[in-house]
Amino acid sequence: MTTQQLTDQIKKKKSFLCIGLDVDLNKIPKHLLDTEDPIFEFNKAIIDATHHLCVAYKPNTAFYEAYGIKGWKALEKTIQYLNQNHPDIFTIADAKRGDIGNTSTMYAKAFFEDLAFDSVTIAPYMGKDSVEPFLAFKNKHTILLALTSNTGAFDFQTKSIDGKELYKQVLETSKTYQNSENLMYVVGATKAEYFSDIRKIIPNSFLLVPGVGAQGGNLQDVCKYGMSDNVGLLINSSRGIIYASNKEDFAQAAANNAKALQQQMEEILNM
Amino acid sequence: MTTQQLTDQIKKKKSFLCIGLDVDLNKIPKHLLDTEDPIFEFNKAIIDATHHLCVAYKPNTAFYEAYGIKGWKALEKTIQYLNQNHPDIFTIADAKRGDIGNTSTMYAKAFFEDLAFDSVTIAPYMGKDSVEPFLAFKNKHTILLALTSNTGAFDFQTKSIDGKELYKQVLETSKTYQNSENLMYVVGATKAEYFSDIRKIIPNSFLLVPGVGAQGGNLQDVCKYGMSDNVGLLINSSRGIIYASNKEDFAQAAANNAKALQQQMEEILNM
Repeated sequence: MTTQQLTDQIKKKKSFLCIGLDVDLNKIPKHLLDTEDPIFEFNKAIIDATHHLCVAYKPNTAFYEAYGIKGWKALEKTIQYLNQNHPDIFTIADAKRGDIGNTSTMYAKAFFEDLAFDSVTIAPYMGKDSVEPFLAFKNKHTILLALTSNTGAFDFQTKSIDGKELYKQVLETSKTYQNSENLMYVVGATKAEYFSDIRKIIPNSFLLVPGVGAQGGNLQDVCKYGMSDNVGLLINSSRGIIYASNKEDFAQAAANNAKALQQQMEEILNM
Repeated sequence: MTTQQLTDQIKKKKSFLCIGLDVDLNKIPKHLLDTEDPIFEFNKAIIDATHHLCVAYKPNTAFYEAYGIKGWKALEKTIQYLNQNHPDIFTIADAKRGDIGNTSTMYAKAFFEDLAFDSVTIAPYMGKDSVEPFLAFKNKHTILLALTSNTGAFDFQTKSIDGKELYKQVLETSKTYQNSENLMYVVGATKAEYFSDIRKIIPNSFLLVPGVGAQGGNLQDVCKYGMSDNVGLLINSSRGIIYASNKEDFAQAAANNAKALQQQMEEILNM
């Protein structure tokens, strides 16, 4: 998918919502546990109920790997279901990978070719040759961790490196990578005041923003400081939407919460 | 496995060799491609031929994920084969994971419980709450990326952060994490001169050292500057051993190359 297609989708749906499919078998409705593939059945119901309200889905691979082969099968079925039924929706493998060159190429093949995701999240610690193999894939997107939404972000990301915070160094250095136009960035919503500085370095790149809702981030603040001319934001909500109810009405409850966020986004886009 | 058990194994085998099981179907002997599970058959033959010469095996998960479900099955069979036949050998899931707290817990379950590895490699970028969920597992080890062996290591890891290189900050900060006694570190062999400084910060921790051989690192230099009182080194070789031959003699050729490294290690240990 191209960035333009993503932007078109945002304008059409009046939404820049990304729904995180982080499926924990301890949290999903009990009646699904009797089905052959509870994880996929849960995702399918959520997707069926919310696809008109969001522009992206983001399964976090950890939640699938934790269930071994069964989990990988559910991930495979979920991405296939999305690509077959909603090819216009942007898909993100939230995998936070990154390794030396030939190994990053293997990860890129896994997520871009074998699973056919539109994008994958990558940790920047190993630098240029760990990121560029992902950037080499045309119309695929590499979402680099810049400033994450957790407390551990203050351990290293916000520390000053040669006079500039590490996450800013990551933003600036990554702009010099080959095919850097395929880069997007993770920036946590819990730190809305950082967005102005970030936009000075990367005025137009898409930002994947976790941390609205459960982690305390504020949508209006993020948009005020982080929105670019082409919107340039994907606001993720996982638990706040998919676990809105753990009863039989879970999909409708998820849709209601997604709708509430979409309406706030529509208001912001109309301003 | 405890660190003491690993050290005992090193002394018994006079080896601190780790063999990287990075299986690429384009590089393994062609006659294996006709078997039901070529990746596992390759690993099994390599393990059968080399287990007396090494103390650890390290499958890099990228090489398995690239083959989807089939790859994960091969990874599962490989770790099961190791745990059943060689429970004394230290196993490393080279996965370079790391995410926010509840997600890191899912990864830890995937690698420590579901797959039953002794250890997993972790990227430090997201800080404390992304690492501690792994450290909470008793007699399991978290191998944090400090200074990697690739050129991209110079993008951020060696940059000065508040007057000290980022990788040294990672070493120092990680010592304050809960259950930090379960930490080991990745330090590339290509930078032997850094080991003295590293040992000042973490005198006794085990270091997993890639980059000897194919990437140009020198075993003697690494040992001179990096060895601790309890050895404290796991020297990894992947391609240099497992792809020693791509013919029917591949396992014997791998054993020969492993033996050559083991003998160098024995000499160093006897000095």
